[in-house]
Amino acid sequence: MSLNTFESQAAPRPLLFDPAKLNGLSERLIRSHWENNYGGSVKALAVVKKRLAEALADKDLPPYIYNDLKREHLLRTGSVVFHEYYFDNLGGDGKAGATERKVIADAFGSFDLWETEFRRIGAGLGGGSGWVVLGLNTHTGQLENYWLADHAHGPAATQPILVMDMYEHSYQMDFGAAAAKYIDAFFANLQWDVVAKRLEAATRQETK
Amino acid sequence: MSLNTFESQAAPRPLLFDPAKLNGLSERLIRSHWENNYGGSVKALAVVKKRLAEALADKDLPPYIYNDLKREHLLRTGSVVFHEYYFDNLGGDGKAGATERKVIADAFGSFDLWETEFRRIGAGLGGGSGWVVLGLNTHTGQLENYWLADHAHGPAATQPILVMDMYEHSYQMDFGAAAAKYIDAFFANLQWDVVAKRLEAATRQETK
Amino acid sequence: MSLNTFESQAAPRPLLFDPAKLNGLSERLIRSHWENNYGGSVKALAVVKKRLAEALADKDLPPYIYNDLKREHLLRTGSVVFHEYYFDNLGGDGKAGATERKVIADAFGSFDLWETEFRRIGAGLGGGSGWVVLGLNTHTGQLENYWLADHAHGPAATQPILVMDMYEHSYQMDFGAAAAKYIDAFFANLQWDVVAKRLEAATRQETK
Amino acid sequence: MSLNTFESQAAPRPLLFDPAKLNGLSERLIRSHWENNYGGSVKALAVVKKRLAEALADKDLPPYIYNDLKREHLLRTGSVVFHEYYFDNLGGDGKAGATERKVIADAFGSFDLWETEFRRIGAGLGGGSGWVVLGLNTHTGQLENYWLADHAHGPAATQPILVMDMYEHSYQMDFGAAAAKYIDAFFANLQWDVVAKRLEAATRQETK
Repeated sequence: MSLNTFESQAAPRPLLFDPAKLNGLSERLIRSHWENNYGGSVKALAVVKKRLAEALADKDLPPYIYNDLKREHLLRTGSVVFHEYYFDNLGGDGKAGATERKVIADAFGSFDLWETEFRRIGAGLGGGSGWVVLGLNTHTGQLENYWLADHAHGPAATQPILVMDMYEHSYQMDFGAAAAKYIDAFFANLQWDVVAKRLEAATRQETK
Repeated sequence: MSLNTFESQAAPRPLLFDPAKLNGLSERLIRSHWENNYGGSVKALAVVKKRLAEALADKDLPPYIYNDLKREHLLRTGSVVFHEYYFDNLGGDGKAGATERKVIADAFGSFDLWETEFRRIGAGLGGGSGWVVLGLNTHTGQLENYWLADHAHGPAATQPILVMDMYEHSYQMDFGAAAAKYIDAFFANLQWDVVAKRLEAATRQETK
Repeated sequence: MSLNTFESQAAPRPLLFDPAKLNGLSERLIRSHWENNYGGSVKALAVVKKRLAEALADKDLPPYIYNDLKREHLLRTGSVVFHEYYFDNLGGDGKAGATERKVIADAFGSFDLWETEFRRIGAGLGGGSGWVVLGLNTHTGQLENYWLADHAHGPAATQPILVMDMYEHSYQMDFGAAAAKYIDAFFANLQWDVVAKRLEAATRQETK
Repeated sequence: MSLNTFESQAAPRPLLFDPAKLNGLSERLIRSHWENNYGGSVKALAVVKKRLAEALADKDLPPYIYNDLKREHLLRTGSVVFHEYYFDNLGGDGKAGATERKVIADAFGSFDLWETEFRRIGAGLGGGSGWVVLGLNTHTGQLENYWLADHAHGPAATQPILVMDMYEHSYQMDFGAAAAKYIDAFFANLQWDVVAKRLEAATRQETK
């Protein structure tokens, strides 16, 4: 564990791909998303952590006021972490390998059924906010798709495998309200090598 | 991964301790909590999974209606998983071992500071609903306390280490509105051996 | 408008009935609910308002930190207001008058259908937190039952007509997890004269 | 009360202004917002109401599944109602009249303090979802600004006076992540005559 509880990362994590070369997602959209929304949460999280350390030392602060900051802590942590998973699983050619196709198919009944559910959750979040997460629940050992209403939601004890941002800042600039077109573009740019590595790491840990 | 995505566990997980022998938490409270609240969520999750499988096959169902069920799925999964962590970390003598004291102190600055924050988050949830979770965020490598407003909230990519239920069904029957007395009783009955094992497993996985 | 925006009421509103004389709801439960949960929110709201006035004067405070307090403001306002509606509609004999039966029946198709839905929403909230509100939406002109997950939720532009608290502090002390018994007791003690007056006032205002 | 509980409006409410003539908000943005986001919720609410009527007749449906639909009902009702308030208070020249300036100043201490808080809440919602509502709480008699995290949140017993949409679909198309520019444009196009009428109606009703 490199960082103390009340510290946070000094800078946003760079993109692993060239944002000018995605297929159907504009450089302007990706850069704005990375700089303003993800980058903004990295900065906000640092502010929140500093304020938490101060607030914790204030013995007269009512606990429910302290928890207002803890909510922001949870929200910003989710924003930073899910955004890093999201950008990392972009930049590929959208083609899933045989291994991950098989693992997903074994869990969901078929690979298509997985994709159908993942896309449907995304479609239902159109016009609002939230995330779609394929995750391995390390407690139940199940691979599942989760609907999250905002950065503060999250499945218990779960390692994210594939993450799609459905906040409107992920697509409005390119697609307006046409969330379905964004979901198509997201799938076309999926970096499955990263997904495969996450799946392998999570499965290894889960089976121990 | 033993269970398919749309399956769920057949029965509640038994208590690892004798509920008649806790110190300051009544057998009636623990049994009601385990049977009605935890056990109720085990049953509800099975119902939700069955309905999800049917709904997914219904091509005419609007995705936002599908997501209403996915919210229940997230909520019940959180309830089942967090309750299992919670009951498993009860039944002990409340004395933390040297190793876990050191790991926590290294992260938070001091063991007391950790306990102060954990208790304060709990106090702030009194009269409402939610969870307090000490978790290892496997993505950032940080050990942190999290405030969760309900079963559907959760920190991203985090392995729970120590979990305290702050829904009122955890204490009203014994303590009425006196949440602080419940938090004292919770700490007095903490099973630190379980906490130590979770911490070791999560740290090992995180450092790989 | 008697109070400035950043002021709040000096004291809790007294109960309009003798809490020792309810039918199937204990004095201990009602007094604890009124003093600790409702009374606690009255005090908390005053604290939050004072902090908001100070925070608003701090030009360097990030707006998202300011909003953490505004969330507490919304939550505590809801708690105070809904609790006052709740206690005021208790203390009666549970018998609805002909007028309110007719108004409700006209809106819902039948009085029984209204009661069935209201009770079902309550049952679904058992073991968690929230409110059931029969309200007149002054914008759409419709009388509807609403599910609220916590004090911060609420139907837009709606005058509450009949309010049932489903936080566990409303019943755990008397009924444990048996929420259905509490709902029966709530209905048996409904003060329909108050409901009738609210309905009349809201309808008059809506039809103007 | 014109509509039965399980009915809903047949069509979206037309804009009261020419969307081609706003100052700094594009016709494309306003039309997309009106058609897709507001119009989408009008359609969704009709679907939800129909499903609720069917679900209520199904005696075997678990109440918590019923409540998943009731959550959507609350959310869509909020979306429809708040959007209608929002569009209705656009299309003006942004100049508040003397009367409404005085009422607001009397409540908040000064008109500028009101505007500062209203804008700050909006700024804090940038990059996420939600509403800013100036409302008259008819129960406490206070005029206050409220932060709402989504359509399902709302202040208890409150008549909306001035409503600003902070979902990203309100501005991303024109301003990208620059929420502050949108807030300026919103204020420049405020239709204060409508705000004045709402304030007068709500105050009249409150003082009775």
